[in-house]
Amino acid sequence: MKRNVYLKMMPLDQAREKFLSCLDWIALAGSETIPTSEALGRVTAKVVLARYSSPSYHAAAMDGIAVNAQDTYGATQEHPLTLELERQAFWVNTGNPLPAGCNAVIMVEQVHQPGEGLAEIRAAAFPWQHVRRVGEDIVSQELMFGHHHRLGPADVAALLTSGVFEVEVLRRPKVAIIPTGFELVDWREAREKQPGPGAIMETNSLFLASLVAQAGGEPVVLDKVTDDFEAIKAAVEGALATDAHMVMLNAGASAGSKDYSAHVIADLGEVLVHGITVIPGKPSILGRAQGKAVVGSPGYPVSSWVCFDQFIAPALAAMQGQAAPQRETVQAVPARRLPSKLGREEFLRVHLGRVGEQVVATPLKRGAGAITSLTRADGLLRIPADSEGLEEGVPAEAELLGPRDRLENTLVVVGSHDVTLDLLGDHLKRLDPRLHLSSSHLGSLAGIMAIKGGRCHLGGTHLLDPETGEYNVSYLQRYLKGVPVRLVTLAMRQQGLLVKPGNPKGITALADLGREDVVLVNRQAGSGTRVLLDYELKKMGLDPANIRGYDQEEYTHMAVAVQVLAGGADVGLGILAAAKALGLEFIPVMEERYDLCIPQEYWDDHRVVALRQVLASPEFRRQVDALGGYDVSPMGTIAWEG
Amino acid sequence: MKRNVYLKMMPLDQAREKFLSCLDWIALAGSETIPTSEALGRVTAKVVLARYSSPSYHAAAMDGIAVNAQDTYGATQEHPLTLELERQAFWVNTGNPLPAGCNAVIMVEQVHQPGEGLAEIRAAAFPWQHVRRVGEDIVSQELMFGHHHRLGPADVAALLTSGVFEVEVLRRPKVAIIPTGFELVDWREAREKQPGPGAIMETNSLFLASLVAQAGGEPVVLDKVTDDFEAIKAAVEGALATDAHMVMLNAGASAGSKDYSAHVIADLGEVLVHGITVIPGKPSILGRAQGKAVVGSPGYPVSSWVCFDQFIAPALAAMQGQAAPQRETVQAVPARRLPSKLGREEFLRVHLGRVGEQVVATPLKRGAGAITSLTRADGLLRIPADSEGLEEGVPAEAELLGPRDRLENTLVVVGSHDVTLDLLGDHLKRLDPRLHLSSSHLGSLAGIMAIKGGRCHLGGTHLLDPETGEYNVSYLQRYLKGVPVRLVTLAMRQQGLLVKPGNPKGITALADLGREDVVLVNRQAGSGTRVLLDYELKKMGLDPANIRGYDQEEYTHMAVAVQVLAGGADVGLGILAAAKALGLEFIPVMEERYDLCIPQEYWDDHRVVALRQVLASPEFRRQVDALGGYDVSPMGTIAWEG
Repeated sequence: MKRNVYLKMMPLDQAREKFLSCLDWIALAGSETIPTSEALGRVTAKVVLARYSSPSYHAAAMDGIAVNAQDTYGATQEHPLTLELERQAFWVNTGNPLPAGCNAVIMVEQVHQPGEGLAEIRAAAFPWQHVRRVGEDIVSQELMFGHHHRLGPADVAALLTSGVFEVEVLRRPKVAIIPTGFELVDWREAREKQPGPGAIMETNSLFLASLVAQAGGEPVVLDKVTDDFEAIKAAVEGALATDAHMVMLNAGASAGSKDYSAHVIADLGEVLVHGITVIPGKPSILGRAQGKAVVGSPGYPVSSWVCFDQFIAPALAAMQGQAAPQRETVQAVPARRLPSKLGREEFLRVHLGRVGEQVVATPLKRGAGAITSLTRADGLLRIPADSEGLEEGVPAEAELLGPRDRLENTLVVVGSHDVTLDLLGDHLKRLDPRLHLSSSHLGSLAGIMAIKGGRCHLGGTHLLDPETGEYNVSYLQRYLKGVPVRLVTLAMRQQGLLVKPGNPKGITALADLGREDVVLVNRQAGSGTRVLLDYELKKMGLDPANIRGYDQEEYTHMAVAVQVLAGGADVGLGILAAAKALGLEFIPVMEERYDLCIPQEYWDDHRVVALRQVLASPEFRRQVDALGGYDVSPMGTIAWEG
Repeated sequence: MKRNVYLKMMPLDQAREKFLSCLDWIALAGSETIPTSEALGRVTAKVVLARYSSPSYHAAAMDGIAVNAQDTYGATQEHPLTLELERQAFWVNTGNPLPAGCNAVIMVEQVHQPGEGLAEIRAAAFPWQHVRRVGEDIVSQELMFGHHHRLGPADVAALLTSGVFEVEVLRRPKVAIIPTGFELVDWREAREKQPGPGAIMETNSLFLASLVAQAGGEPVVLDKVTDDFEAIKAAVEGALATDAHMVMLNAGASAGSKDYSAHVIADLGEVLVHGITVIPGKPSILGRAQGKAVVGSPGYPVSSWVCFDQFIAPALAAMQGQAAPQRETVQAVPARRLPSKLGREEFLRVHLGRVGEQVVATPLKRGAGAITSLTRADGLLRIPADSEGLEEGVPAEAELLGPRDRLENTLVVVGSHDVTLDLLGDHLKRLDPRLHLSSSHLGSLAGIMAIKGGRCHLGGTHLLDPETGEYNVSYLQRYLKGVPVRLVTLAMRQQGLLVKPGNPKGITALADLGREDVVLVNRQAGSGTRVLLDYELKKMGLDPANIRGYDQEEYTHMAVAVQVLAGGADVGLGILAAAKALGLEFIPVMEERYDLCIPQEYWDDHRVVALRQVLASPEFRRQVDALGGYDVSPMGTIAWEG
């Protein structure tokens, strides 16, 4: 394998501009006439004029008597006036037409009936009082909506009212999606068993189809095609021959030996852009063929999303006569330094939440393959191509992926990972649907430093002091001098050795880590579990240099468990919950205290108040207890204050 | 007809609270298990855990060679290292599993091939470099989503990736809608001809159905029922027996002799609230029966909308485990004094646009029957029940009905009405889809006063100076002292007498207005057309007191034309466009100059720049010319500056 093709990179804005100006999108979309009753959410293709006026007759706007105002002049509280029914006054219900000669309605509550056939009033009516006049709402022939108006519920009702029963709308942009790649396995074939190594479950087409649908388009997912120039070409030709406005090839967009997208598009039409100075999303292809758009999107889900978000979404909007969607922004401070590659604009997915005066941005996974970095993101930090990164604490503009008020309702948690935190987040949301817990699993010490820096509301911590054998307090005294905090116990939890089912290496205690045939997967430095391990190793005089795999670090209990299950290691130190989740065996080593460290400053913040409410709820306690490996009796007690 | 029943009014918030706490909405909704591929936009009914990890194997994240990092140590630019292919190094494509023993990938661009079977590298690899490790994205058994999470495109893809092919979601709230009223005509029966006086086209059910659909619910519109207790009761019972979660009766919600909704709901279950201190929307009924919600919404479309917006929408949200939708707000100054009834919270629909530093709120029609007050609204001003109204220029909180950036892109026009303004708005939007023209038709003088008060960007004006016979300038000199403006001509336009087809009264000139058998429909004082009429009447010595209908005032040309067509008057003064639109005859009286008065302050505002661009466009000029009754040759010229 050899590669001589390099992408000719183009900056993002330039690429978008080139793509958006390459076609007349409105003309490409075309129009169709549909029943107004089915037009909700559709976009007018031209000016719509009213056919009928509304009301079409002078109508009573109240229940009461219809009169001619002139007949009522002079009526007062002191000098009531009596009108003759069926001659000067006529009972009407709301909506009834005014009898000839009438031009006002007097409410039934203000009409007295002194005798048969008589109505007494105590105030004069003014002309057109309580009358809905002809054309008061809509006048026949008036312009109801201009071009490219997206019809909402009231619009649809107004059109019917104005006698417009059919409306010419822009066609929904239709996007044909072609998955390519020999390694792809349709997810429908993966129901029973996960595809083995080398096979990849094809989920991008549904992802892209969902994005198209959400953007008001109509997606059509075509059969997957293997990595073969002729096969892909035939698939694109077939798609171009349908009524689709755009064809998307997914994967094969790069310049590798098996990347055919660009060749196919060039063969059938024109490649306008291949390669964009953006990350993720670099190997996107923008082109056209036979008067339609043809796009090659990269194979990693986040790359593919950036390609959709930056190119496809604006094109779909243009086909609907709308401006490109724009996200709201907020100034946010990065929770830590974020180096980024010069010459690439990076789309970094972040948690966002207001902590004190600042909105803090905590980065999620940066890999283009991490779909969870999108599902968990509250926003995007875009690091410009000419920047080497963002500095910790220096405000930068973040784009919001959720509603703005989520910033005020997000509890920002940084620290040690524990599976109960996910459960805590779920309970918070059930308490109040607006609440949202964002948790960054960076280890106990990182959490304490984030508290010190004012970059989170609280942190989970289980740091053993090797001198005293006490948990957490001495660390807070050392690192959080001058920051008043409360230490609230979440639970006592077991730490133990995770080993494969059946314990093939016969591991029974920490001492086995020194064996030649045993490989460890470790936790990262600064994590409570690592401190615990180092403490125990030191106590027993076992030198880390003599432990195989000691340098192999993972950031969560679950990741440690996965390594053991997958055979990357024989043993890891972790919690029972992680072992149970993956069916590993668990050899208890000790019990530790897992606390939440909460600055007093945020103690009465509505998010923290809600969290304390969850800690006090029997249902939450019951669920944590059911996980196993926890002693929940001290849950919610204040272990220390300072 | 007599009425003894009065509504027992309840404040809005109290009514909503009472309704929302009357049912366990989540339990009412219930759940169902559906394919994940169809779950876009649906809401999780419970916690969802990952079944599969992703990646499920250590995968190459780049095209290149897979190696064991230890084998590469020591390689530098100066001292390249040669690895043996198929023993120490293995070609891999992105996504391939790492061969056993490998833990890093070196990019193809950094691999040289000095000879057959050899790979030369010039830098060491670090462990796990360019490798996507098992569980890097998703770890089996981790919590993917908690309760009541609305699934977006990435969420759906993430669920598939994690091996979750079916998901338990809350059922879509199903709402049965029953139109009631003997006067209703199905809109399907009104295709050919507008229903006659007394008959009302039933469009509310589609309006409500669209609102339900937009809120994520599933509407079912049932057959209309006439005003009869037993018939309505049978319809509600039938709807309650289906799987609908809520039944809505539309109209008949008040306390009149033919309003049966409350009686039916009381008979089948319980009326919780009947009557709310809100306008529009006062006679709403909130109830429950057989463990489901039953709502009676008022018949006027805006009343019905308020009922939906304030009660149904939050209930639908609660059935989806979501917080009630909240609109963004902005401080806006009312363009004029807005008196409001004490004891009623009024929902006033307004145009909103930023003019200089302020956001100005210009009220739309206040009638509950005016559906166009919703279709044209940019926002809502809510006037509290304990307020007698809002003061001109005093900031009040407005709720946004559109995106926030529309405030910056709305051209606020106040002044005389001309049909070309609608066309202008359409052209603006076609120039830039973000632009939006809001036009309040209050007459030329009101426009000038709005300019003086800084409450609009420009006004349309055609005010004749009776002293000089000149248009507009003397008025600006008088009323806009110290406000530098430019007067830009839109067009010369004909004003004439509008008469019924065939001119049955044989009207030929203004002098005919003095005839005993001729009834006029007039324009409001302050409008340019009214000034013109008064000028001509004075010239010919015709006393307004001798003109029948002189006091009958309308606010637009089209409304005048409708009055003539409907027989409310024999003649009106107006423009040719209005006559043509309704098929009236037009007797020219004179030509007048219609100008746009634009403060210099806004001359370079992007909205005004766009407007000037439209005035300069041949296409706009052509379309105005095609309307008839205009001389477009002076369009865009500056008539005066001061």
